[in-house]
Amino acid sequence: MKRVAIIAKVHDPRCQGIAGELIEWLSDQGVEPLVEAHLAHHLLYPKGIDSARFPELADLVVVLGGDGTLISAARLIGGRDIPILGVNLGSLGFMTEITVPELYPMLSDCLRGDFNVSERMMLDCTVERSGDEIARHQVLNDVVINKGALARIVDLDTRVNSNHLTTFKADGLIISTPTGSTGYSLSAGGPIIHPSLHCIAITPICPHTLTNRPIIVAEDSLISITVSSLDDEDVYLTLDGQVGVELKSGDLIHVSRAQHYSCLVMSNKRDFFEVLRTKLKWGER
Amino acid sequence: MKRVAIIAKVHDPRCQGIAGELIEWLSDQGVEPLVEAHLAHHLLYPKGIDSARFPELADLVVVLGGDGTLISAARLIGGRDIPILGVNLGSLGFMTEITVPELYPMLSDCLRGDFNVSERMMLDCTVERSGDEIARHQVLNDVVINKGALARIVDLDTRVNSNHLTTFKADGLIISTPTGSTGYSLSAGGPIIHPSLHCIAITPICPHTLTNRPIIVAEDSLISITVSSLDDEDVYLTLDGQVGVELKSGDLIHVSRAQHYSCLVMSNKRDFFEVLRTKLKWGER
Amino acid sequence: MKRVAIIAKVHDPRCQGIAGELIEWLSDQGVEPLVEAHLAHHLLYPKGIDSARFPELADLVVVLGGDGTLISAARLIGGRDIPILGVNLGSLGFMTEITVPELYPMLSDCLRGDFNVSERMMLDCTVERSGDEIARHQVLNDVVINKGALARIVDLDTRVNSNHLTTFKADGLIISTPTGSTGYSLSAGGPIIHPSLHCIAITPICPHTLTNRPIIVAEDSLISITVSSLDDEDVYLTLDGQVGVELKSGDLIHVSRAQHYSCLVMSNKRDFFEVLRTKLKWGER
Amino acid sequence: MKRVAIIAKVHDPRCQGIAGELIEWLSDQGVEPLVEAHLAHHLLYPKGIDSARFPELADLVVVLGGDGTLISAARLIGGRDIPILGVNLGSLGFMTEITVPELYPMLSDCLRGDFNVSERMMLDCTVERSGDEIARHQVLNDVVINKGALARIVDLDTRVNSNHLTTFKADGLIISTPTGSTGYSLSAGGPIIHPSLHCIAITPICPHTLTNRPIIVAEDSLISITVSSLDDEDVYLTLDGQVGVELKSGDLIHVSRAQHYSCLVMSNKRDFFEVLRTKLKWGER
Repeated sequence: MKRVAIIAKVHDPRCQGIAGELIEWLSDQGVEPLVEAHLAHHLLYPKGIDSARFPELADLVVVLGGDGTLISAARLIGGRDIPILGVNLGSLGFMTEITVPELYPMLSDCLRGDFNVSERMMLDCTVERSGDEIARHQVLNDVVINKGALARIVDLDTRVNSNHLTTFKADGLIISTPTGSTGYSLSAGGPIIHPSLHCIAITPICPHTLTNRPIIVAEDSLISITVSSLDDEDVYLTLDGQVGVELKSGDLIHVSRAQHYSCLVMSNKRDFFEVLRTKLKWGER
Repeated sequence: MKRVAIIAKVHDPRCQGIAGELIEWLSDQGVEPLVEAHLAHHLLYPKGIDSARFPELADLVVVLGGDGTLISAARLIGGRDIPILGVNLGSLGFMTEITVPELYPMLSDCLRGDFNVSERMMLDCTVERSGDEIARHQVLNDVVINKGALARIVDLDTRVNSNHLTTFKADGLIISTPTGSTGYSLSAGGPIIHPSLHCIAITPICPHTLTNRPIIVAEDSLISITVSSLDDEDVYLTLDGQVGVELKSGDLIHVSRAQHYSCLVMSNKRDFFEVLRTKLKWGER
Repeated sequence: MKRVAIIAKVHDPRCQGIAGELIEWLSDQGVEPLVEAHLAHHLLYPKGIDSARFPELADLVVVLGGDGTLISAARLIGGRDIPILGVNLGSLGFMTEITVPELYPMLSDCLRGDFNVSERMMLDCTVERSGDEIARHQVLNDVVINKGALARIVDLDTRVNSNHLTTFKADGLIISTPTGSTGYSLSAGGPIIHPSLHCIAITPICPHTLTNRPIIVAEDSLISITVSSLDDEDVYLTLDGQVGVELKSGDLIHVSRAQHYSCLVMSNKRDFFEVLRTKLKWGER
Repeated sequence: MKRVAIIAKVHDPRCQGIAGELIEWLSDQGVEPLVEAHLAHHLLYPKGIDSARFPELADLVVVLGGDGTLISAARLIGGRDIPILGVNLGSLGFMTEITVPELYPMLSDCLRGDFNVSERMMLDCTVERSGDEIARHQVLNDVVINKGALARIVDLDTRVNSNHLTTFKADGLIISTPTGSTGYSLSAGGPIIHPSLHCIAITPICPHTLTNRPIIVAEDSLISITVSSLDDEDVYLTLDGQVGVELKSGDLIHVSRAQHYSCLVMSNKRDFFEVLRTKLKWGER
């Protein structure tokens, strides 16, 4: 490993402080650090580095922040096979599971090539309006279609591999990866899915129909949703809880597995179930 | 009974046709009809009748439409003790349970004073901003606080009789009457409450906290909710799904039992459970 | 107050120790203590006291144990209007909310007549077989009809005030008081009901029908359930989780409000919501 | 295809009648039919056929009955790669999705080798008591651990790949295949899983812990559950809802993917989602 990129929350003094220490430490190891202070709409790149080429220059990306920072880093890196080491600087994260004291020992192992990676499925989402693709995004967690707070009913006619699934009459719909299953989908009544699995969860939000239940479909499913709202307004698409797109009645949303996976460097200190019990108090009395 | 008011959906030809027949029928019976064609922001009053005095002039109000029309009629009538006869002209309603063929026999009974009334609890809701009351409404179904589709987390610090209940971290919160329990509250996971009961249901919408469950409190509870959102924007109050108020961080919402009840004329042809089984397919395989 | 009865778990050394201290303390106050060491099928009465007359001789009953001990004490006391002071000697209880350090100050207040009582609705349950009443019990928490682990489907044809509610196809059915709503009913998906309310919750256990939801009916409802199982066997009635009755196909279970209420002495140190947050971690992240 | 086995419910006259017609039809096609009338503990074999060798002699097995008959046929056939054609003779089944009028056209296609098969994951379940394996079964739907109706709390200490998952305090636990997800697991709050998926659902039954949610783990997971009950009695293991094993405190249940898959012949007339909408009224208003 020759070049390690650092992505840190720009307005967080603790993240910035650790980023500074990390740059020194990497230089001492003979590794060239690439620093990026990251916050939505506020990207700083080290001089001489073209932002578009940033991720492909790195052999490893260290993310300093919380799950939210890691999710946006995953979108930035896109489908490239660069391992991501998420360091948890907030409350215990599902993805940023490495603590600050574990950082340097883990990094030493990584530089020697001694590390485990958890391959996480991502979803590719496109919005088609009147036959044109108006938006395209990749997500690590979820694609959410949601009506506005004052909007009336929205109908979401949903097909899986061109078979009609159902027309959801609901506040919205969550299409989630296994990684995203412990996020919004869980709040809406979806199951917990081990992040190593390859499948897609479809969870309605406040369905008007009492028989609706979350449904899990195969990873190679092509999911298509036609939005129809009474008012032709006030329906939104949210990607990973971070990017919003305003939808119109008649828009067609396509969701399928992304071509590439996110590669998260895992600690062997704790397993997913431990994070579940600690973070969600899952199974605790 | 001397004067019967008619409230009908203004753009619905079937409602208008039946309203016309009903006016003739009432005149034949020596009853003076008061007609109001009703739709949001489009109220027509018979000449010589002051809209503000409209409901108090009637001995009975006939509503031609669906549950939505009846709910807005109940708000219009406010707390006055005038019986409301809801005629169902759409899909079977929970409140407009009388069918068109049943209308004239029921009305004949009503004019003779031979009818049963179901007293329905209503809620009074006020919004306090910086110490001032900026809005006040009465609802038959529910008070809903909801974040916008793109808003991040909203915190709803909730007190009951000045005891701290909890701070809901959720998409929103539904405060519902028993009548409203088969509406939005049910979609969000709330229980069905027989409409004759006097109590208040508090149901969180997609709570982030796994332990949250709907809670039913006494009818004389004073519920106070302090809204705090990160962005000081994009939180809304919706009353009976029909009236919307934009909220700000720091707003204080008070909900308590309204002073008056809505009096719905009931058919003895079917009970609540039958409507439940027919409309919600509740309990059907 | 002249006579205070003490009911304590017989095999629990801590309960027995505190019972001993309490007897002395009461004698010092000039109060005659009546002691009962209580455990299922193992009741010890002080000599000279007829067990059947035991509760009616007391002006106050102190229960040393947990919620389970208090529930069986409530059944023993039946409908008599004797206040019950539940002292929590296990994990924090919903009903035994007074801690050991609070016991003597509370008791001093009680002896002076200075105390608040929470009236708790109870249910009366009878089992009718071939026209004969074969069992009758009063419960503070719940009446549960449950199939055996290896039994196949059981049908529970349920009527409320002789109106057909539905035929539950389920593992069983819970008929619960507001006090019982935080027990088994909550595990089966029922709502939390403030214990001061007067109503009855009907919660199906693992219903085969996706549309089934818990339903809350009025306190004066007469609920009748006809059991029909394929095998004429392996269906049970459980009362407050403590008394079991084997049912047969064709048995008719009647549940209605009991004539009397349980009177629980309440601490003013904590309200129901605090117990909810502490015991169930309700609403906590 | 040379030999077609027929498994039919023995006490069902309609199944028997169709079995008779089918034998003739197969003989007319030059195919040797092997008939088995099937009901628990009542197996009839055609003369000259050793029951133990029965399934391995067939190139195709036709099951006449409902989903229950097909499930027991799948256990009888074990892991052999013989396609199973389930004909639905009761209410529409999830697995027996071929109707009687479709039988002969489908069979003609099958004899020509023109058919699609859905490979369904099965689970292998062993019970270990004091170090000895006392029972071993393969299931197509689910492994259920359930306490008896009158038993008190049961603790189920659960490990996945020797990592501690949680100790479920519940009425029981369901370990389900995707095929079984629309059965008991769905009643207990589990998600619907497309039957083509390879994964395992763990769904608690009435958990005492509010934070518990169903969890989906990888197909190659080794699940181990240690049973501990207060009373050392009244806990049961049920396999596919058909075979029961009485458990003792301390028993260790191991569940993992079975070596072989069940091969169900599928109609191309309807997809899984259609069966879901028709049978469960899933997504219908």
